[in-house]
Amino acid sequence: MSNTTTKPSRREVRAAASDYIYNLTGQPFPNSHKVYVEGTQDNVRVGMREITLSDTFIGGTEENPVFESNAPIRVYDTSGPYTDPDFKLDVRKGLEKYREKWIESRGDTEILDSVTSQFSQQRMADEGLDHIRFEHLPKIRRAKAGKNVTQMHYARQGIVTPEMEYVAIRENMGRAKIREELLAAQHKGESFGASIPDFITPEFVRDEIARGRAVLPNNINHPETEPMIIGRNFLVKVNANIGNSSVTSSIEEEVEKMVWSTRWGADTVMDLSTGRYIHETREWVVRNSPVPIGTVPIYQALEKVNGVAEDLTWEIFRDTLIEQAEQGVDYFTIHAGVLLRYVPMTAKRVTGIVSRGGSIMAKWCLAHHKENFLYTHFEEICEILKQYDVCFSLGDGLRPGSIADANDEAQFSELRTLGELTKLAWKHDVQVFIEGPGHVPMHMIKENMEEQLKHCEEAPFYTLGPLTTDIAPGYDHFTSGIGAAQIAWYGCAMLCYVTPKEHLGLPNKEDVKEGLITYKIAAHAADLAKGHPGAQERDNALSKARFEFRWHDQFNLGLDPERAREYHDETLPQESGKIAHFCSMCGPKFCSMKITQEVRDYAKDLEARGIDPNNVGDAIEIKMVDVEAEMKAKSDEFKKTGSEIYHKAV
Amino acid sequence: MSNTTTKPSRREVRAAASDYIYNLTGQPFPNSHKVYVEGTQDNVRVGMREITLSDTFIGGTEENPVFESNAPIRVYDTSGPYTDPDFKLDVRKGLEKYREKWIESRGDTEILDSVTSQFSQQRMADEGLDHIRFEHLPKIRRAKAGKNVTQMHYARQGIVTPEMEYVAIRENMGRAKIREELLAAQHKGESFGASIPDFITPEFVRDEIARGRAVLPNNINHPETEPMIIGRNFLVKVNANIGNSSVTSSIEEEVEKMVWSTRWGADTVMDLSTGRYIHETREWVVRNSPVPIGTVPIYQALEKVNGVAEDLTWEIFRDTLIEQAEQGVDYFTIHAGVLLRYVPMTAKRVTGIVSRGGSIMAKWCLAHHKENFLYTHFEEICEILKQYDVCFSLGDGLRPGSIADANDEAQFSELRTLGELTKLAWKHDVQVFIEGPGHVPMHMIKENMEEQLKHCEEAPFYTLGPLTTDIAPGYDHFTSGIGAAQIAWYGCAMLCYVTPKEHLGLPNKEDVKEGLITYKIAAHAADLAKGHPGAQERDNALSKARFEFRWHDQFNLGLDPERAREYHDETLPQESGKIAHFCSMCGPKFCSMKITQEVRDYAKDLEARGIDPNNVGDAIEIKMVDVEAEMKAKSDEFKKTGSEIYHKAV
Repeated sequence: MSNTTTKPSRREVRAAASDYIYNLTGQPFPNSHKVYVEGTQDNVRVGMREITLSDTFIGGTEENPVFESNAPIRVYDTSGPYTDPDFKLDVRKGLEKYREKWIESRGDTEILDSVTSQFSQQRMADEGLDHIRFEHLPKIRRAKAGKNVTQMHYARQGIVTPEMEYVAIRENMGRAKIREELLAAQHKGESFGASIPDFITPEFVRDEIARGRAVLPNNINHPETEPMIIGRNFLVKVNANIGNSSVTSSIEEEVEKMVWSTRWGADTVMDLSTGRYIHETREWVVRNSPVPIGTVPIYQALEKVNGVAEDLTWEIFRDTLIEQAEQGVDYFTIHAGVLLRYVPMTAKRVTGIVSRGGSIMAKWCLAHHKENFLYTHFEEICEILKQYDVCFSLGDGLRPGSIADANDEAQFSELRTLGELTKLAWKHDVQVFIEGPGHVPMHMIKENMEEQLKHCEEAPFYTLGPLTTDIAPGYDHFTSGIGAAQIAWYGCAMLCYVTPKEHLGLPNKEDVKEGLITYKIAAHAADLAKGHPGAQERDNALSKARFEFRWHDQFNLGLDPERAREYHDETLPQESGKIAHFCSMCGPKFCSMKITQEVRDYAKDLEARGIDPNNVGDAIEIKMVDVEAEMKAKSDEFKKTGSEIYHKAV
Repeated sequence: MSNTTTKPSRREVRAAASDYIYNLTGQPFPNSHKVYVEGTQDNVRVGMREITLSDTFIGGTEENPVFESNAPIRVYDTSGPYTDPDFKLDVRKGLEKYREKWIESRGDTEILDSVTSQFSQQRMADEGLDHIRFEHLPKIRRAKAGKNVTQMHYARQGIVTPEMEYVAIRENMGRAKIREELLAAQHKGESFGASIPDFITPEFVRDEIARGRAVLPNNINHPETEPMIIGRNFLVKVNANIGNSSVTSSIEEEVEKMVWSTRWGADTVMDLSTGRYIHETREWVVRNSPVPIGTVPIYQALEKVNGVAEDLTWEIFRDTLIEQAEQGVDYFTIHAGVLLRYVPMTAKRVTGIVSRGGSIMAKWCLAHHKENFLYTHFEEICEILKQYDVCFSLGDGLRPGSIADANDEAQFSELRTLGELTKLAWKHDVQVFIEGPGHVPMHMIKENMEEQLKHCEEAPFYTLGPLTTDIAPGYDHFTSGIGAAQIAWYGCAMLCYVTPKEHLGLPNKEDVKEGLITYKIAAHAADLAKGHPGAQERDNALSKARFEFRWHDQFNLGLDPERAREYHDETLPQESGKIAHFCSMCGPKFCSMKITQEVRDYAKDLEARGIDPNNVGDAIEIKMVDVEAEMKAKSDEFKKTGSEIYHKAV
């Protein structure tokens, strides 16, 4: 009974992707609809998914049953317009530029006549690219000369931007009266500790961004996004990687994977494309993405020098940064901590340097025998980033690639350098977060979080897993999910997902979904463990539904309603199975959940009669022998015989 | 692009199961074969899986390449004869009775003329059952009058049984010279602390069993098993549940699931059947199982009273214990801690009593207003168990069924009672382990382990997960795998797997495999974190293979070679892709792993020239500004403006 799904051809996959992206209709999840919570600032309207629940049968007769209603549950929603049927979706045009008015009204940006990057100009002029070019290219925006347009810059001036208010509302997801509470909280002038408050106010958001403990990645050239925040005093976030390679994939598939990722909960998406048409693919992805997009610019820079790392130059890299910043990329992974002197520290590792960016920079350093140009030009990078509000995601190029290499000198040396660079970026009011490993056994994970908090001054941590064992290729979404849940509990702010294909191949659509659900579970488990207010509401609603045999509600409250229903239907396919007050495990005759009702009746009866349950009726007390004394006798007896006599098998 | 596997019909599933079990050929894993390590006692031969690895290319020319060989890796193997082609397998006859001679030679047991249980006698006499009856029923063995045949009893007399030596060899899996080391260690008379020694000796095994900190479940009527041990100073073990229900399944499918489970790493298997033919199904399962079998006898007792819990009696239950003990069940889940006075404590829970056994006993207690008969007759149960060496698995009938109910009064009250019962069982030298939850958020898991160790005097803990969130039906193998890894690290000895079908339906064969691999990962991650000697050997071998592009070795060293290969082939199907020195993620042009070789050459060169890597060449030092001072200035500036001024969006 093996899995007999036939593998579709490349052509079929691409056709399916086209079909998917050109026929998007804002399909909501079952029994769910989009609700919008308004803020106090202009046009702040935060979309959330509201799941409607059925009533609970609480008594009465068959003719006159009595029901109690269950309040709908609102959950954090990353899918943007893609789950709202009221939006007219057209991937050729891209999403509505929701944030544009906010950016414009700040008056510190200007529209450019044309793109700044030389490479972008070449691509624009190339008629051979017309057939794959995104048609409705937007105007490019940049900070006016001398202006700094980062959210951190505003935050440090005490400005609560609409983006910050948006985020505050979003993080309070479950609350019904958010707008009223926001208005009430607005002028309190609270001061904040380092922990999650019961109610997230816009001022708290501003404070965390100003402090550098959280980032709000939103390039001014990506006004299609719904603002979100990454920081350890907020909900744990999840990133999904997409991207083609020289071996496989197409633009349609990447757009499909991006939309698909946001459906299954991706808070940000990294486009790690390395093949041809990186520039064009990225434009399609950014224009259609409701979540921030991250990239690793060195990947594209390497393509521009035909894959020869030693041919990389600061000028080529710089042009790439501007190219991508003007397309709207929200954060850049920059491997500026791979210093020449750290490179030899990896020589005795089991798995050397496994980060692609890290090894590119190591190769460059060795070839030129010079310090990493990302490090030497770091402040120039800051100057670029603050003109567009691109965040740094400081890459961990020397992260361990195996359990054997975890927490070694190379890794922690680089981390300390990332800490220095964090302060340098903050000097420019540029937002920063820090990338982390990798492969780390459970007992060594905490040290990673502690070192990061210490050296990087609490800038948000963003880890890839970590994988807690190396022995399960094909299941690394899970080997890493264990570590991800743990490190997020310890304070990691965002988790980069790992799919089942990790180490083996490129993920397809199903792998993307599997990786995302795994990581949404890890993130949510951590939110519960951190005591995030409101996080448990969904657990409680689902458990209540489960207990009351409201099968549809149980499915719909879950992270994957479709799969839950499908699994249930394998055993009890009939519709009656979904309203039956029993489950397939115990069958119709006996059910543990049914008995609980009797327990409740009993407890109510005891209470009504004023009886203490600890002195219930004629409970027979079992005569417990003096166990301690007997054990001691046994032990004495053993000491006499056992310590001397070693019997062979008798 | 949905999963388009067509669901097979019930008839097809059953036919496939028949086909599978009647055509077993001892199929080994790829590049693996069974090796047997001999002990010092008679007929102690421990089967292990040895994975052969290919050579590493280390230099030379194309004509004269130079290779270095990689030592084969030995791994713990639960599959018994099912992966050894030298065995002639016939499920109609069952496995070889490997342990029979050891049991017989102890001279403390006798063969009975017929089964003792009345129910068993009825089943034997029923000709209507002939067509499903296991043909080659073995003789029944029982302790001679007044004898105690438990491994704990022997251990406490200082006897190192062959079973104990077997276990010691098995736990040292990776060691080449086990036999010599065992002989050397034999008369050392060591004393042991509470932690895992570098080398597990038979005497250490005996000591842990005598102390009650480990159990060796091996019913004298199940001589087909390969001895294994459960305790926190040994490798973490995994249990797989199988079992039909009144709704679905057949004997063929249960035997298939049992064999399949041992292939994928089940250390024990629980048969949780609740449908018709429980007795006959169990016989087939036990006779063919190389691993200990556990059951929940109250399930069958309930069937005998037509599912009416209040009709249960001690006599019916007692007869069921004897019936199952004489069939060879190795451990019984007994819910003796569900006391009448604890039942009302569950009334205000979100999910009441979710344990089936727990709710059966709760119902009985309420109906009769009497104390749980499993508690009042506990010592009589001990008397039965010690005649066959059946272990107690003390059930947690009041475990939490949701995050909301974790670690509550009901749960911990029952746990304390299980602690009392543990001491009572030990008084009879009956082996005991303790079942644990359930649904527990991450930050509340540690308390479970600590309470269990404290109240149950370090008797092994055996948990179901715990699930760290309730919001992902369809993925509860993973929501629980996170908690399982964590609690195993803290000291839990055995993990009861959870499949993706948990809460939704009965697992099929693929679900069993998915659940097992997930739990083997959790167990292994915990073994690494606990510092189990030798556990990391497999990780290191796999990572080295990965790094050296020995693709086949990477697949074969993994927990699921088939899936790893299949995933790899989706992107690079050609055989050349499996010897190519690059992977599908980066493509042929650039590869991070290739660069590491250059790093190694560079480091070697530095070393050869006596250069300190920290003072490498002309590395340009970036002029770091006085960041601290500037940050302070920023902060002062902010304090002046930010704490007073709240701008609206500008």
